[in-house]
Amino acid sequence: MSSNTNPPSGTRDFLPDEVARRYRALTIIREVFEAYGFAGMDTPAFERIETLMGKYGDEGDQLIFRIQARGEKFEQALAEQDAAATADHALRYDLTVPLARYVAAHQHELPTPFKRFAIAPVWRADRPGKGRFREFLQCDVDIVGSDSLMADAEMLLAVNEVLDALGLDGFTMRLNSRKALRGLVEAYGIPVEQESTALVAIDKLDKIGVEGVAKELRGRGVADDAVEALATDLASSDVAATLRERIGGSALGTEGLAEVDTVLELTTPNLAGGAIAFDPVLARGLSYYTGPVFEVAHDGLGASIAGGGRYDGLVGMFSKNDIPATGGSLGIERILLLLEAQDAEASAAAPTALVTVMGDEHRGDAMRIATHLRRQGAIHTDLYVSDGKLGKQFKYGDRRGVRFVIIRGDDEAAAGSVAVKDLVSGDQVTVTEADLIAHIRSRV
Amino acid sequence: MSSNTNPPSGTRDFLPDEVARRYRALTIIREVFEAYGFAGMDTPAFERIETLMGKYGDEGDQLIFRIQARGEKFEQALAEQDAAATADHALRYDLTVPLARYVAAHQHELPTPFKRFAIAPVWRADRPGKGRFREFLQCDVDIVGSDSLMADAEMLLAVNEVLDALGLDGFTMRLNSRKALRGLVEAYGIPVEQESTALVAIDKLDKIGVEGVAKELRGRGVADDAVEALATDLASSDVAATLRERIGGSALGTEGLAEVDTVLELTTPNLAGGAIAFDPVLARGLSYYTGPVFEVAHDGLGASIAGGGRYDGLVGMFSKNDIPATGGSLGIERILLLLEAQDAEASAAAPTALVTVMGDEHRGDAMRIATHLRRQGAIHTDLYVSDGKLGKQFKYGDRRGVRFVIIRGDDEAAAGSVAVKDLVSGDQVTVTEADLIAHIRSRV
Repeated sequence: MSSNTNPPSGTRDFLPDEVARRYRALTIIREVFEAYGFAGMDTPAFERIETLMGKYGDEGDQLIFRIQARGEKFEQALAEQDAAATADHALRYDLTVPLARYVAAHQHELPTPFKRFAIAPVWRADRPGKGRFREFLQCDVDIVGSDSLMADAEMLLAVNEVLDALGLDGFTMRLNSRKALRGLVEAYGIPVEQESTALVAIDKLDKIGVEGVAKELRGRGVADDAVEALATDLASSDVAATLRERIGGSALGTEGLAEVDTVLELTTPNLAGGAIAFDPVLARGLSYYTGPVFEVAHDGLGASIAGGGRYDGLVGMFSKNDIPATGGSLGIERILLLLEAQDAEASAAAPTALVTVMGDEHRGDAMRIATHLRRQGAIHTDLYVSDGKLGKQFKYGDRRGVRFVIIRGDDEAAAGSVAVKDLVSGDQVTVTEADLIAHIRSRV
Repeated sequence: MSSNTNPPSGTRDFLPDEVARRYRALTIIREVFEAYGFAGMDTPAFERIETLMGKYGDEGDQLIFRIQARGEKFEQALAEQDAAATADHALRYDLTVPLARYVAAHQHELPTPFKRFAIAPVWRADRPGKGRFREFLQCDVDIVGSDSLMADAEMLLAVNEVLDALGLDGFTMRLNSRKALRGLVEAYGIPVEQESTALVAIDKLDKIGVEGVAKELRGRGVADDAVEALATDLASSDVAATLRERIGGSALGTEGLAEVDTVLELTTPNLAGGAIAFDPVLARGLSYYTGPVFEVAHDGLGASIAGGGRYDGLVGMFSKNDIPATGGSLGIERILLLLEAQDAEASAAAPTALVTVMGDEHRGDAMRIATHLRRQGAIHTDLYVSDGKLGKQFKYGDRRGVRFVIIRGDDEAAAGSVAVKDLVSGDQVTVTEADLIAHIRSRV
């Protein structure tokens, strides 16, 4: 007998109610993506270790869960104290590198453009913390093989429809372009070698305010006059309009603004919910984005619930050619927590009815009645399959969250009827077996 | 650029069509289990290594994928060449040990009896071969905490309904009891210490015939007169009846027959499809079964597609008390292959329609029409989001398996209409935008 029965640090067991809730949300997400013509794809939980190493920077490499080689290969590595050779596979760290490998492996079997979604767990050996897990779901949607802004717009609309279909009210999609960002930096005379560091600071506007951004820019060595000009604009009454004018002074910036405008034009009339707006200071993981970028903020949450953009340099990493791509990622764990908070009362895993059993001689009847409800009634029905007094059976039904408890004792058996206790109203009525389905349906 | 883009040996990438097909089957399975009052449960992909090691025998231990410890812990283990200490977690090998840990960890949060199903991948470092993978899905259904035969019957009915709902025709459920098996051995005077070895031989009747079983029994040291008596009975015209009479001569055997009869009585009138019958020579992984056991054979397949039984000693392995349990496992990978063979034609991932784009000036219209079909029509609609001539767009639609291609050029735009090409009939008609949904619906 092992003493520790908790799941490993940073991972979770899911109780039936959570499983049902998560599954319900994932079903909605799948359905929307399929309605938008995206196809599901799936890859193994682990990859050859060389497929993953070196793709996420040094820090990422440290967080990859490595799977040991076996047999002689492992023995030899151990004998030689060759750390690298002790592992030959590694758990998936994200869904993007597997996508790149998949596209390279199956390019002749896939349509172009390839519109995919993937919902799957990934594993990272991060220090576990509140809301930070070592095993968590990612949900990605990507269009691979098109450099048209139609693809960016389509991906955004699918994400928008998913968020709306999930019942997440009060979200805003912020849109920018990597090119507009570079134009912004150029417009304030910030030299190109300071571009990245300046954008990291500007991206924090929401959190640290204009003064904070100015301070951080100075700290990062940006010239005083550039910082002052930017700070003045960031404090103006219509920041977006002011910055837009500035950005328009740069050729690259003008190109970026045109991208943003085209995407807004294609998406705005077709939104399912929420709103979409240009945000000239939205930066997002600058390292690999090449075109439009977006982020979705939820009113009730400090953090974003989705984000992404065009990343034309990445999917081709295992292919001979560059492959244009645009994609988004839903912060699915965060979204599931939001939904849980919205819907804390409902018992998602609850069957509608429980058929009780009044002694061995009634087992056959109970089983027949349960089968009848399930098969003819399409009513989710539990059956009490242990020995226990009626009180215990009711307690079980209550715990499962059922609405109706069905009882068939000697009297009911003699009359061909059943007693139905409604746990919501508290009343109990006797109906014939033939009327049972109609009775339950009339009440739910 | 890495040279090998195949998935790791023994694992699979799933193409969109396979993903859609698999997902569809799993949805049906979930729905049936939920209708029967079973709740989904989920545990992490990996466990602490001590949770898994020693639970599957020496051979099993060898097949467990071990995950490396990190940081100092790993460095030290490597320096000391302490193989065991180099790994601290391991990938899930089956769904039963995690169930046992889960029940021990959450006993106060779960109802009793606890009816659960789980569908999840497991990983085994087996030598890959035809139909043998290192990552594959398992689908288990269990009732934990009841020693009543109602639980066995309930579990069998749920499995039966799942197989029927999946559209698997021509399957037979074979039922036996571990106690009847022990009675059988006893009845032929085979000493208890030869019980296991004798049953391994008898279990092969289907494959090697009566002569084969007799030969193997002799080879395993069973006495000649016992072998002859058994061989004669196995060759009789009604084996089940003949063996039943023999088994009835043993007290334990009689108890086992009563178990079988009760389960048959409770299940037979409630079957959704297929048939269920007593099979006195069905043995199944004898090591841990304690009561009724079953196996489901499919006509078109040499192998079984489901199996299981009562295993009262296992789920308590992490708890203080013994916990009775009965469960079954669907051979889900095999079933998915069967379904694929039955349904080889259909393109499961295909959207219904493709909206084409006749140049940049028509992008907005195309996007609006696609949104209209998706949102107002609930019609799965793809949109061509790359640049390409109409021929290329048609080719893409064909590849995706769409039925309708929708075209809106200058003429259609001027008239507020769209052209709809039906790729099945080959005809093309022009309809107003307002009539588009009704037109498509009338044809599918």
